[in-house]
Amino acid sequence: MNSHFERLLEKVHEIHDLEKAIQVLAWDKETNMPAAGNTARVQQLTTLRRIQHRLFASDEMGELIEAAAASLDSINPDSNEFCLIRYLRRHYTDERKLPDEFVRRVSQVSGAAHPAWVQARAENNFALFQPHLAQVVALAQEMAELYGYEDEKYDPLLDKFEHGMKTANVRAIFNAVKTELKPLLTAVAERAHAIDNHFLHQPFPVAQQQEFARYVATAVGYDFSRGHLGTVVHPFATSLSRDDARITTRWYPDFLNAGLFGTLHESGHAMYEQGTAPDLARTPLARGTSSGIHESQSRMMENIVGRSRGFWQAHFPRLQTLFPTQLSGVTAGDFYRAVNKVQPTLIRVEADELTYNFHIILRFELEQAMLNGELVAADLPAAWRAKMQELLGVTPPTDTEGCLQDVHWTRPSFGYFPTYALGNLYAAQLYEAATQQNPAILDDMAQGNPASLVVWLRENVHRHGRKYTPGELIMQATGQPLSHKPFMRYVTAKFGELYGLS
Amino acid sequence: MNSHFERLLEKVHEIHDLEKAIQVLAWDKETNMPAAGNTARVQQLTTLRRIQHRLFASDEMGELIEAAAASLDSINPDSNEFCLIRYLRRHYTDERKLPDEFVRRVSQVSGAAHPAWVQARAENNFALFQPHLAQVVALAQEMAELYGYEDEKYDPLLDKFEHGMKTANVRAIFNAVKTELKPLLTAVAERAHAIDNHFLHQPFPVAQQQEFARYVATAVGYDFSRGHLGTVVHPFATSLSRDDARITTRWYPDFLNAGLFGTLHESGHAMYEQGTAPDLARTPLARGTSSGIHESQSRMMENIVGRSRGFWQAHFPRLQTLFPTQLSGVTAGDFYRAVNKVQPTLIRVEADELTYNFHIILRFELEQAMLNGELVAADLPAAWRAKMQELLGVTPPTDTEGCLQDVHWTRPSFGYFPTYALGNLYAAQLYEAATQQNPAILDDMAQGNPASLVVWLRENVHRHGRKYTPGELIMQATGQPLSHKPFMRYVTAKFGELYGLS
Repeated sequence: MNSHFERLLEKVHEIHDLEKAIQVLAWDKETNMPAAGNTARVQQLTTLRRIQHRLFASDEMGELIEAAAASLDSINPDSNEFCLIRYLRRHYTDERKLPDEFVRRVSQVSGAAHPAWVQARAENNFALFQPHLAQVVALAQEMAELYGYEDEKYDPLLDKFEHGMKTANVRAIFNAVKTELKPLLTAVAERAHAIDNHFLHQPFPVAQQQEFARYVATAVGYDFSRGHLGTVVHPFATSLSRDDARITTRWYPDFLNAGLFGTLHESGHAMYEQGTAPDLARTPLARGTSSGIHESQSRMMENIVGRSRGFWQAHFPRLQTLFPTQLSGVTAGDFYRAVNKVQPTLIRVEADELTYNFHIILRFELEQAMLNGELVAADLPAAWRAKMQELLGVTPPTDTEGCLQDVHWTRPSFGYFPTYALGNLYAAQLYEAATQQNPAILDDMAQGNPASLVVWLRENVHRHGRKYTPGELIMQATGQPLSHKPFMRYVTAKFGELYGLS
Repeated sequence: MNSHFERLLEKVHEIHDLEKAIQVLAWDKETNMPAAGNTARVQQLTTLRRIQHRLFASDEMGELIEAAAASLDSINPDSNEFCLIRYLRRHYTDERKLPDEFVRRVSQVSGAAHPAWVQARAENNFALFQPHLAQVVALAQEMAELYGYEDEKYDPLLDKFEHGMKTANVRAIFNAVKTELKPLLTAVAERAHAIDNHFLHQPFPVAQQQEFARYVATAVGYDFSRGHLGTVVHPFATSLSRDDARITTRWYPDFLNAGLFGTLHESGHAMYEQGTAPDLARTPLARGTSSGIHESQSRMMENIVGRSRGFWQAHFPRLQTLFPTQLSGVTAGDFYRAVNKVQPTLIRVEADELTYNFHIILRFELEQAMLNGELVAADLPAAWRAKMQELLGVTPPTDTEGCLQDVHWTRPSFGYFPTYALGNLYAAQLYEAATQQNPAILDDMAQGNPASLVVWLRENVHRHGRKYTPGELIMQATGQPLSHKPFMRYVTAKFGELYGLS
């Protein structure tokens, strides 16, 4: 490596270490910190972020990037060096577009919006949140202008989470999902009685839930020797390094799914981080490439693996041993069906595989309407109710169960929501490609063993970290651009069989 | 506040936030981090420390300090502004004396010395550690020269932990302690059989130990709503802010004292941090003033409160409820005596109130001998054995139980050890002054309630943080410079009564 590149790397490592320190403070904030420590912690986080921004968005950094770029001997688009410079150039250009004053304003507006949202949600009083939402939308609009765009205002915001993806592309895919999924959902809804899941709602002591969650997380391939399981209110995964990729879960003492599938979901995220190539360490390439691809890994473990028949045939006996009374008389097949019961509900994070995407499409559409000035904050609750009725046939009786349910709009991070549904589509496409390239994966999955699938994911997804854009990655791994068709094939086969559809 | 001072404060806050971020990473390292995460974490910590040093030891910082100093309207030695500038000037001068190259070398030598010490200790093989110790001693010598000194080479090192204290002063005090304590120890040793403590060594389930530890920590005044109790191998307290001052404990499943008195000890440390005045927040004054005064607060809660007769008369019934079988037939008086049993042993951290100071005096003397070149690393084990025999009448059969027992000499932080014993002396002197100024404290203590003592400590010690030097603080609080006499009066009365001495 030449000296220009080495000097760049030194700076990159420093900025990366700061980023990871921020993640440690954020992890601790959610897991161990007493509530009283919040004010000081927010100051500490703000200071670290400011220092990081100062280091990265400096003139010096721009010169270092360009000097290192010019010094590269050859342009091999698969080399770590090339990919790093490409990423840094893009990220540097973006960072320089947001003035300090704007970044501070975002922090102030979001800082005030969050407690207002908490209170509004707790009291089912949208009016408390409305003026904050109006400010957040204005910031998102301003941000879009600062970044700049050619086609749609939503494009530059979406690009921050799913680089290279266009709003029009997402819209076309989501419209196809809507059209094609609706008949399946209708057919399933007509046979809603076919699946009984009442036994999931019983007292399940948390200690045993945790024991089993650790067991299944290990079973899907999460490496606890390079990780940690914490308890929180709002679960997340975080990587403090590839050898310290943590998961968090919340536990309901009277409902099994939240802790169990939450753990599998976060394990999928963390396995992606644990699987990044060691030689990417201490650079921004040492992490998942986009929010959508990241979500594909969590949904893969939560749903495609964790809600499969083979998985429960293999692991249900152990669960039954831990909860002999609660699960007395329940078979592995009963359990498999119960955790896949389809039911249009009001809350996104509780949605099943068939209805989940509709929750996202709703948010994607309302978010654009707000960004484009077609929907003002005051009209959001009514618009939300109308769209829930249109898409899922249910209407939230309160805003707490409606437009106040998610934290996301306390920040101007519009463009994030669609990546949840993109994750479902990517997951199905990756799974289909994996099983086509290595049919033994299907046999292993039928035995409840995802090891060969994980090998394929490590090779085709995890190890690359952020070297490739999501579009490049999905093309390399599956030979196709993103399509909703594998997802449709997956759910049609799975739920057709579950609900006895012809 | 004028604009010069405000600009200084802005910088001070930034550096302070970085310092606290370092503490969060260090806390997490000991509590939650998987071992595999260590390499990345050490890099992260090194980066944060380097950035912090770069910010603080900059020319700009020196100019900011002096501009702010010149701008102060009046010189009120009790004002936060005056005390802050005084502290910053001193600390800045010190930091500038250590070249980056030296700081890096300290980090490298210590980084290599620590695992060598771990292995040497585990294998009882001093030879593995010896070359590292020689390097550490050389660094301590170099550091003393870099800081500079008038009288003794040990002075500038001691000053880092106990600002304003001279080696000669400590030596005189320690010699007096040796002389006066020896007859008491001899008299007690002759009546060793008088106290039975065998019931402390039994199976005590850790969950109940933790429950009781939280109860007594609250009873002495530790505020859990602004703290957190973690489990670690080597206990410590840390303050991530005054509203997030944490304690850690280790738990032995078959011995009560480690978890119980360890928790009280760390609670004392954390209460000092929780008690600093809010208007010192985000400055380096928002913490305990010296290692010795800090230790006085931990020893106050661990020993003067936690090993008092009144405390156990009040709280033993609750302990007995938690361990009815183990403590069946034991009275509060039996328990009080057992936790105060005197026994010359090999291990510092397990020592009682009478023998503890001898462990420290030994280290203080050997440390000086090594620093002054009178004792080479190779001769340490023999010198240790000889001095243990001289001071405590016991000889370690292995170096693991001898000169390898403490981690401290993996770093050139010579001068730290004496502060442990100074803490015992400060504690007794503060307690005597408190009870003289407010005799009701004695009545409350007899009821097992330290609340009025804590009020006095908050007023006379805690709230000042690092505004005053330890010498100033002890003079203001007690009207006297540090003396060993209150400690001698305290132990003579307590152990005379316990052992029935005339």
